[in-house]
Amino acid sequence: MRVTVSRKAHFNSAHRLYRKDWSMEKNNSVFGKCNNPNYHGHNYELIASVTGEIDVETGFVLDVKILKNIIKEEVEDAFDHKNLNLDVPEFENLNPTVENIAVVIHKKIKSRLASNLDLEVVLYETPRNFVTYSG
Amino acid sequence: MRVTVSRKAHFNSAHRLYRKDWSMEKNNSVFGKCNNPNYHGHNYELIASVTGEIDVETGFVLDVKILKNIIKEEVEDAFDHKNLNLDVPEFENLNPTVENIAVVIHKKIKSRLASNLDLEVVLYETPRNFVTYSG
Amino acid sequence: MRVTVSRKAHFNSAHRLYRKDWSMEKNNSVFGKCNNPNYHGHNYELIASVTGEIDVETGFVLDVKILKNIIKEEVEDAFDHKNLNLDVPEFENLNPTVENIAVVIHKKIKSRLASNLDLEVVLYETPRNFVTYSG
Amino acid sequence: MRVTVSRKAHFNSAHRLYRKDWSMEKNNSVFGKCNNPNYHGHNYELIASVTGEIDVETGFVLDVKILKNIIKEEVEDAFDHKNLNLDVPEFENLNPTVENIAVVIHKKIKSRLASNLDLEVVLYETPRNFVTYSG
Amino acid sequence: MRVTVSRKAHFNSAHRLYRKDWSMEKNNSVFGKCNNPNYHGHNYELIASVTGEIDVETGFVLDVKILKNIIKEEVEDAFDHKNLNLDVPEFENLNPTVENIAVVIHKKIKSRLASNLDLEVVLYETPRNFVTYSG
Amino acid sequence: MRVTVSRKAHFNSAHRLYRKDWSMEKNNSVFGKCNNPNYHGHNYELIASVTGEIDVETGFVLDVKILKNIIKEEVEDAFDHKNLNLDVPEFENLNPTVENIAVVIHKKIKSRLASNLDLEVVLYETPRNFVTYSG
Repeated sequence: MRVTVSRKAHFNSAHRLYRKDWSMEKNNSVFGKCNNPNYHGHNYELIASVTGEIDVETGFVLDVKILKNIIKEEVEDAFDHKNLNLDVPEFENLNPTVENIAVVIHKKIKSRLASNLDLEVVLYETPRNFVTYSG
Repeated sequence: MRVTVSRKAHFNSAHRLYRKDWSMEKNNSVFGKCNNPNYHGHNYELIASVTGEIDVETGFVLDVKILKNIIKEEVEDAFDHKNLNLDVPEFENLNPTVENIAVVIHKKIKSRLASNLDLEVVLYETPRNFVTYSG
Repeated sequence: MRVTVSRKAHFNSAHRLYRKDWSMEKNNSVFGKCNNPNYHGHNYELIASVTGEIDVETGFVLDVKILKNIIKEEVEDAFDHKNLNLDVPEFENLNPTVENIAVVIHKKIKSRLASNLDLEVVLYETPRNFVTYSG
Repeated sequence: MRVTVSRKAHFNSAHRLYRKDWSMEKNNSVFGKCNNPNYHGHNYELIASVTGEIDVETGFVLDVKILKNIIKEEVEDAFDHKNLNLDVPEFENLNPTVENIAVVIHKKIKSRLASNLDLEVVLYETPRNFVTYSG
Repeated sequence: MRVTVSRKAHFNSAHRLYRKDWSMEKNNSVFGKCNNPNYHGHNYELIASVTGEIDVETGFVLDVKILKNIIKEEVEDAFDHKNLNLDVPEFENLNPTVENIAVVIHKKIKSRLASNLDLEVVLYETPRNFVTYSG
Repeated sequence: MRVTVSRKAHFNSAHRLYRKDWSMEKNNSVFGKCNNPNYHGHNYELIASVTGEIDVETGFVLDVKILKNIIKEEVEDAFDHKNLNLDVPEFENLNPTVENIAVVIHKKIKSRLASNLDLEVVLYETPRNFVTYSG
């Protein structure tokens, strides 16, 4: 019986969409107001969903407290109240679009899970825009 | 790396569930109060989700502004503040159940997307009732 | 100790904003697309809030089941799956703006409450537009 | 055209996570404060999603009123305002983790659906923790 | 410039509505299924709102971290994963209706605030039922 | 009959809490991680509520499209995808706490309303923290 266990979390970050190797003009034409050199920001809402077998002893797929702690260490401590472009090494040379942030988060959480567990990450940049990545 | 990009939108419409080729009695027995001849209405909430590869240059699957515009032109301009039965050609001979509306929306948005992109449509008729269609 | 007890409810209706005594042109200039002669509709969300003293015996201001039943009889049974302009007598000669609907609902519920209870009505026409009326 | 029809519902229950065959000490170390012998409780929010072909006559996959009634009889009447450990036979010897509750609900609703319909259950224990089970 | 600062929090508890000095019959007739002797439970959502002058130096009415900590110590640590009737001294002889719980929470938080600050407590027992108390 | 008409809007901004005339040490001790020199950010959600008499001709307190446009011009165009500290003149010498942002927004919208209309501003910095200001 494979069940998916999901946990919501959030972090508040500044970011800017642009490529260092493009002109300001080209960045503006592709990224528009998201390329504000002074940055803008979001309350990111994250749903991390782990799929696996129910442990017949405990009735858990995994203890949600463990998932909560992994999210805290890998995502909240690393991204919350940070400037994604300047403060987070993964985005030094990677444009922090919500797609790329989701892929980075997926990699970080997945590395902490037992290999028989699957992971899906849903990341809301705003209540109206979000992405889903399953690896 | 295939990622899904989702965008929420909404439209407010009147509709009535019934078949012209059925008697009022039969329509009432199948569709109940949804067959009010004077119509009722809903705030439809739409989530359009597009799945494709991340463009390594931009970090986008597709620019969400493009998706927002497609939804505006294909769905909001066509359905918002309209009577689905009387004002929307697709429902002239098609009962506007939330299932059928979702299929029509899927067809309209899909026709505007590159062929390598997949589309899923979630349509809320009320906060408690919704449907999902992936083509 | 005066406490306010609130109950949420909802109804789905069609309506049209216009005045019978105005020309189509004037109605269009004031009410825009809300004056679609074929109607449009909404999922109205209602919060009815009753303020009074806590009964020291029961610990209730009023039993929320009573409030739920009053809302059902006065609002849901009267408005749900109806065309407000055509099916609801209160709007035969009253434009069903969300302001006017809230005032009508307030009057209907207030008439069912003990006179020492105050009532506030919040009515959402969409998740983004709502009104508040306290009598 | 396979479409998924989803319906939300809710129930409010007390429960306690523990195994009768474990010591209090072991139960505490695994289940923490969820093992309070006096119980705690939740507002469970349920989304039951049924997938099948659209009936070309009615435009329904299934009438959502039917799904609403099945949920009422199988879930709300059985679980609402109950103590899951003491009042619900399915959990007499099964730890009522949200995973196990979802599996029990899936089994109960599935038994009431035509065999050509698929079912997915999403169960929120809190707004931040939820599980998904598809059988 | 008086501004109100609000903070949301939550706790999950079991409870039962009844009076020890009433017969089971009378408790059932007044409190219905809320009088289940085995208890039921809720995810309570709390909004604590503090009103005062903006400090011109900091731009804060009060640091929301302080309010968050007061809520944690006075409410979450005391009520979360507890049985309100059995584990919380304030309800030993007080029926834990949502009205009474709000009054108790108001008293506990208010005692920790400077006397020039006003407090309003909103307490959701379910997403559809909530109360408001301002002292 | 005084009724309150409310409209929701949103903007996404970067900001940093600090005083230029304080040392980094003092700013850190008061504002903690909100004083990140590289900024962080939020999806601010705004509810602007205007109270006045219902116009008996139109049934409106004010046309919500007018309120929507005022919010767009005064708030969204000025704050969205901006760095509040660097890009918004009002915060050149004013710490952009959510309290101060709400006061600034109130002043800007109020200046556009007829003098017989009252205004309340609710501003969410996160889904868990928000402020209310009525002038």
